[in-house]
Amino acid sequence: MGIVVQKYGGSSVADAEAVKRVAQRIVDAKRAGNAVVVVVSAMGDTTDELIDLAEQVSPLPPPRELDMLLTAGERISMALLAMAIGNLGHEARSFTGSQAGVITDSRHGKAKIIDVTPGRIQKALDEGAIAIVAGFQGVSQDTKDITTLGRGGSDTTAVALAAALEADVCEIYSDVDGVFTADPRIVPTAQRREQISYEEMLEMAAAGAKILHLRCVEYARRYRMPIHVRSSFSKLSGTWIADPDQLGAIHGADHGSGQEGHDMEQAIIAGVAHDRSEAKITVVGVPDKVGEAARIFEALADAQINLDMIVQNVSAAATNLTDISFTLPRADGQTAMTALARLKDAVGYDSLLYDDQIGKVSLIGAGMRSHPGVTAKFFSALAAAGVNIEMISTSEIRISVIVDEAQVNDAVAGAHAAFDLDVDQVEAVVYGGTGR
Amino acid sequence: MGIVVQKYGGSSVADAEAVKRVAQRIVDAKRAGNAVVVVVSAMGDTTDELIDLAEQVSPLPPPRELDMLLTAGERISMALLAMAIGNLGHEARSFTGSQAGVITDSRHGKAKIIDVTPGRIQKALDEGAIAIVAGFQGVSQDTKDITTLGRGGSDTTAVALAAALEADVCEIYSDVDGVFTADPRIVPTAQRREQISYEEMLEMAAAGAKILHLRCVEYARRYRMPIHVRSSFSKLSGTWIADPDQLGAIHGADHGSGQEGHDMEQAIIAGVAHDRSEAKITVVGVPDKVGEAARIFEALADAQINLDMIVQNVSAAATNLTDISFTLPRADGQTAMTALARLKDAVGYDSLLYDDQIGKVSLIGAGMRSHPGVTAKFFSALAAAGVNIEMISTSEIRISVIVDEAQVNDAVAGAHAAFDLDVDQVEAVVYGGTGR
Repeated sequence: MGIVVQKYGGSSVADAEAVKRVAQRIVDAKRAGNAVVVVVSAMGDTTDELIDLAEQVSPLPPPRELDMLLTAGERISMALLAMAIGNLGHEARSFTGSQAGVITDSRHGKAKIIDVTPGRIQKALDEGAIAIVAGFQGVSQDTKDITTLGRGGSDTTAVALAAALEADVCEIYSDVDGVFTADPRIVPTAQRREQISYEEMLEMAAAGAKILHLRCVEYARRYRMPIHVRSSFSKLSGTWIADPDQLGAIHGADHGSGQEGHDMEQAIIAGVAHDRSEAKITVVGVPDKVGEAARIFEALADAQINLDMIVQNVSAAATNLTDISFTLPRADGQTAMTALARLKDAVGYDSLLYDDQIGKVSLIGAGMRSHPGVTAKFFSALAAAGVNIEMISTSEIRISVIVDEAQVNDAVAGAHAAFDLDVDQVEAVVYGGTGR
Repeated sequence: MGIVVQKYGGSSVADAEAVKRVAQRIVDAKRAGNAVVVVVSAMGDTTDELIDLAEQVSPLPPPRELDMLLTAGERISMALLAMAIGNLGHEARSFTGSQAGVITDSRHGKAKIIDVTPGRIQKALDEGAIAIVAGFQGVSQDTKDITTLGRGGSDTTAVALAAALEADVCEIYSDVDGVFTADPRIVPTAQRREQISYEEMLEMAAAGAKILHLRCVEYARRYRMPIHVRSSFSKLSGTWIADPDQLGAIHGADHGSGQEGHDMEQAIIAGVAHDRSEAKITVVGVPDKVGEAARIFEALADAQINLDMIVQNVSAAATNLTDISFTLPRADGQTAMTALARLKDAVGYDSLLYDDQIGKVSLIGAGMRSHPGVTAKFFSALAAAGVNIEMISTSEIRISVIVDEAQVNDAVAGAHAAFDLDVDQVEAVVYGGTGR
């Protein structure tokens, strides 16, 4: 009997009715012959409400206590879910992160999983019960304190448990139908991907697609755990995230998902992602000497700032000065500017420029490297949409540009259409139509 | 440095402002030179809200999962309290019942404490931190599942931890100022007791005084742990519960409570308690043979019903039939009547009478045994108040009567006045006035 790990987010268990609907779906998976482990987030806005309470009693809550507080949220949702399943005639047992064997380091609020020892989960499965596990939380190896995994934590819990239990698949349920070629709110003709590789999904996540968190995909890739992203509000099949060689086997051993087996469609372009959460800083007039750039980035690292794109142009020969630009989360903008200002005399740059009215638009596709002309086609699509490019950064399977925030939608729509991703066009091709 | 265990109930931590006020009080105790352990209940109505949620997803929630759900309540309040203390410049660490070493049996919803191993609490105290512990919860010795202690659980947690840590005192905070000679809502002239013995408090609790739960007092008596019952809304000293020989020592080593040392006042009467939660069942016309009563009470025990008062009159010689009456929680009335109805043919009784319009009024005092005439004075006070007595039951330090529920207030007030417990009269005596 195969093990299926299912993860339900907060919107899927927002109230008692939603909990009952999810319980029915879990029981269906159990009845289909699977051993079922469920990872659940806190209900709806519970976490935000708890954070509000914390802010009311302390402006800077101790991280250990904040973790203790926030983990109450999953405790509520998982117990309710277990009860609802019990009411459908199946035994379900809920487990905290600690009871489920999710061992982490001691960094409260952003703990990393060190080990997963799911002995109690395996025992529950062996005894025929459905196991419900609190997402987002663990217990620290050293201090035995309750920890939380930070953003994307519940998805990571699910993948980590799936890997430790050697599950067949990790199903991630949310309120969207899967991974789309672009955000359907911006591009109504965006199409759902039936499958996508780990690498493409990593680039999509890094480029701002919010469907799965980066670390969850990294974890899944490391353990080659297939992820099936689907909606808890429909019975539709979603998007499979796996290596191409895994997907045939998965579709052969289908877990009642309704997905029909078919050949691997190896698209050139996986999708267009965008991100409006970043700001851009330019250090103007940096002396082009060995070690100057290092001093700048060391100062930013000391301030615990994660940078995204970094661009340095060749220096103008006349002045021997260069400009260094980079993007970073807007929330870190003030901290970074303060850290850089302190360096002014030591580095001897001219000035700092700060711009948070920017957006990042990325084209992702594992096939693009072997298809020359993708970059040119991307840039000409942006030009045709009237979008000016401020910065460019590329990886083997991604091209990202920084544009004016007001032009993000136009850029996404333009690129999406240029690469024949619009759903009507694709269907026209599939069904022998006259799409370009 | 002495250890003080403080327990705050749900009304004391009902919202963020209340949490901050309690935090200040805890810090005051710490600054006064004590090592401080705090046991806290869930905020305000949290537990009721969680039970409502459970009922929405399942008519009969599995007890294990209900315990998992309910323990989220204390997790929230204890983390917030630790944060609020941190904001006042003192380190506080919160601990679940499991982390605090509260080991119980496996009876979910009404677990009994088997052992307390507060190693992590002691370590926190040794390191100068304030320890905040979730009340009402523990972990089962056999299954390592989360358990709850049932009604009065947080008070019991506090006393059990105080005993295990060999604390100087266990302070129980609520929204009342202490133990009164009668319910001040019924008898406005009721006076706060400065001290009361374990035995008297046990009888008060058993007789319906809601200030402390019976099992908490039993635990305290077993370990001779002094309890100080006080209000979290005032700085007033409350009521000390301890053996008479302990009280002198306690008042000598006062913990900043503002209580002045004074001689032990050994009152004859500790107070008047009442209880409106019981019903009365009479089994009419029971054959007066060996074993008939046993069959009746075995049937009730099998139905898990706790009886309170039991009265059997001598049988009328002419018929050799007797009536057996007993009181029980009203909530169990239907179950008991059903169990008894099944016995009708086997026992051969005439009929069953059920009455839930009753109240119990009890006079409690460790000194009453050595003061003849207490019973007569109690009954004549009830007669003067026009109250008819339906049943009588006595112990060495208590006399309880069952009366019509509508007459409970008159009975309490009449008895309270007859035994000179009204606060004006007592002060008149103390200050040389002309009180009778």
